[in-house]
Amino acid sequence: MPSTDLIFSNRDEHLTWLREQSVLPPGFKVGTTTFDFTPQEALKPARMTLTLIALDEPSADFGAVFTQNAFPGAPVIIGRQRLDEPTMGALVINNKISNVCAPDGVATSEQICAATAETLKLKPGQVFPSSTGVIGWRLPAEAMIAALPAADLALQSESILPAAEGIVTTDLYPKVRSTQIGEGRIVGIAKGAGMIEPNLATMLVYVLTDIAIPRDVLRAELTLAVNESFNRISIDSDTSTSDTVAVVSSGQVEGVARSDFATGLRQVCRDLAEDVVRNGEGVRHVIRVFVQGAPDTTFATQLGRAVVNAPLFKCAIAGNDPNVGRLVQAIGRFVGNSAQPIDVSPMRLSIGGIEIFANGEFMLDPAKEVTLQSHLEAAQLYASQPTENGVFLPPVDYPTHERCVEIEINLGVGTAEAIVLGGDLTHEYVTENADYRS
Amino acid sequence: MPSTDLIFSNRDEHLTWLREQSVLPPGFKVGTTTFDFTPQEALKPARMTLTLIALDEPSADFGAVFTQNAFPGAPVIIGRQRLDEPTMGALVINNKISNVCAPDGVATSEQICAATAETLKLKPGQVFPSSTGVIGWRLPAEAMIAALPAADLALQSESILPAAEGIVTTDLYPKVRSTQIGEGRIVGIAKGAGMIEPNLATMLVYVLTDIAIPRDVLRAELTLAVNESFNRISIDSDTSTSDTVAVVSSGQVEGVARSDFATGLRQVCRDLAEDVVRNGEGVRHVIRVFVQGAPDTTFATQLGRAVVNAPLFKCAIAGNDPNVGRLVQAIGRFVGNSAQPIDVSPMRLSIGGIEIFANGEFMLDPAKEVTLQSHLEAAQLYASQPTENGVFLPPVDYPTHERCVEIEINLGVGTAEAIVLGGDLTHEYVTENADYRS
Repeated sequence: MPSTDLIFSNRDEHLTWLREQSVLPPGFKVGTTTFDFTPQEALKPARMTLTLIALDEPSADFGAVFTQNAFPGAPVIIGRQRLDEPTMGALVINNKISNVCAPDGVATSEQICAATAETLKLKPGQVFPSSTGVIGWRLPAEAMIAALPAADLALQSESILPAAEGIVTTDLYPKVRSTQIGEGRIVGIAKGAGMIEPNLATMLVYVLTDIAIPRDVLRAELTLAVNESFNRISIDSDTSTSDTVAVVSSGQVEGVARSDFATGLRQVCRDLAEDVVRNGEGVRHVIRVFVQGAPDTTFATQLGRAVVNAPLFKCAIAGNDPNVGRLVQAIGRFVGNSAQPIDVSPMRLSIGGIEIFANGEFMLDPAKEVTLQSHLEAAQLYASQPTENGVFLPPVDYPTHERCVEIEINLGVGTAEAIVLGGDLTHEYVTENADYRS
Repeated sequence: MPSTDLIFSNRDEHLTWLREQSVLPPGFKVGTTTFDFTPQEALKPARMTLTLIALDEPSADFGAVFTQNAFPGAPVIIGRQRLDEPTMGALVINNKISNVCAPDGVATSEQICAATAETLKLKPGQVFPSSTGVIGWRLPAEAMIAALPAADLALQSESILPAAEGIVTTDLYPKVRSTQIGEGRIVGIAKGAGMIEPNLATMLVYVLTDIAIPRDVLRAELTLAVNESFNRISIDSDTSTSDTVAVVSSGQVEGVARSDFATGLRQVCRDLAEDVVRNGEGVRHVIRVFVQGAPDTTFATQLGRAVVNAPLFKCAIAGNDPNVGRLVQAIGRFVGNSAQPIDVSPMRLSIGGIEIFANGEFMLDPAKEVTLQSHLEAAQLYASQPTENGVFLPPVDYPTHERCVEIEINLGVGTAEAIVLGGDLTHEYVTENADYRS
């Protein structure tokens, strides 16, 4: 369940709220710079933003989790090695090119790390790289290294917002969430709009805290928090080659209980995960599937994913069409193909709190259809309207509200449950992805 | 690989070809009738076509395979029972409502069978029901029974084309394929445009033959043929609750070798499967994925499905964008999540015969990109163009050609291979499914 229930009526309201969220905990600096270059594989020039997140002092207390894609990007390969380093001093992040399966990708990424280390007076092993964007292209190493002094010059210790703005690609707006725990603070930012699926996606998430937490505890809590937040969302079932969630502590605030830190970390991760879905490519409705009565948590989670990934159901939601048949189809497909067959006869379904299926049969009438349709309309983020030539672009660049299409599936065969978030399938998604080259 | 390479420049050419394909083998009659009614769950009236396929004499030699969805439609539940009956005398098929999880669905479907039996002077157990369309609604039993005499009156033994036209829902055109084997003949029809995925989809397929084949042999060969045709296609990864492939022999032509019959049956099934994809909802490009060098056939097939179901890759194909990164992402996601991890380093990829990836790296340059784009453009069935208000409708109602986007994935770790067909993800798909109620 969401920890907030915000409504924004324009971009400025959202920005004001973002600024409040963005206050950096002590011990961190953030700077960005933007430049143009021509990719070696392309005919047109492109624009890249380089983002630095630097610690005042290198910290031993950091952790990260990565994509499970079999073709991880070079920064992910390096990032996994960095987990064995004694300390981390900075993150260097670029958008536009993800440096995945590009010739000499690892060497290029290490070259960027070395240059960053030189700029910030660190060792290369203390610099943690991240890239997002086009797969297969080579990073413009020379241009990136030339841009480092400008990013260094921009470093400031007030706000994480420049980084939240610097790491985006097709995102409509920056995503920042924070929480205060006693004297300590946790602030996180997320990039992610497409290729969003369980097991991480082209989603880059950085969480900074001043709360002193030993490395092992930090990593254990990160895994738990990611598992019930970023691993429970799916926009299009595609899993990026670059997903990264990194957390680092400047260790300046002692005495916060582990359980309080864990609660705060989970809240920030859950809120950012929902932000990522709500800003998913073409998403006009966030769909929240609450599976109960499942034989185990894995079954509940996978069933939830199957529902939020079923294209026909996603299209029906986009059209504010309470097409309950497509929901049952998606559940039946998952159960029918499952290695763990269950008895479906006790299943009960509701949408927006209204029961539509029980005892193996639908419970439908024209009045109920009208009520269901109202629930879908209330959860819509904006009305779809094509511009000229049938191009569909979102008319808003801020989240208008935090309402969801609420689906409840009670399987009635066990006690496990899971909440999975996903989006609808819209013309805006097709417009974005049938032409887009990030 | 396709058994034909047809090009049609207009609907009449296609229809002429369809008529040639549609000649009924001796021993069968086909009749249809269309009527209007108001569904109990809806506010607007609807139109239904009732199709009868009758044998001159009931036959023991029939078989069928069905959806694996855990919520099968009532006709599927009955159809499974009918497989134990000594003979089949007729099929009664309706579109518009699929009779899935509707109150008293099985009883209603049996009522239609009983009335059909009375009309055709058969026993109810000799009548095999099929329904496709909206899930959850009740069949209009009274209106259907009242329509039976008209369908009976329409029975003729010349052409299966009226049935191919009668069973469709959102299909753009009827689908008929046939082959002649000595004195014998196999003719099949297919309905199917959405919810098309492995393990069958809202796909209804009926194959008729006059070749005498014992029931057990017929069923064994049907399973084999379906496994390498209809179970190797996927339009949107959704699996319908109503999928049925039925085959029946009138047994009038003796002496055809089993192997010749099997070859003919497979060809008809493969051609119909490709027709179903080519006429898939919103499909502008048919994507053929040829996986080689796989550890086993299941792995090869599932990898092929993962590629044709990856939304970002499907969108790129729709836009004639050779976005090779999204192809590698889809493969990497499948392998990364697979219970059977393989070494991906020997993998080689090509599109349209042009190698794009080997030794863990892309091989790209601007000239190659232009060639790849031409391959995609040549495989496009029609140019996308919105009508007013951003509604996208296919401007053709016939298959313009049989070219595919050809993807070759050589994993280099084994000897197994599989071909999987799928479609792109287009504005036409969203237009069809964000508003459509079949």
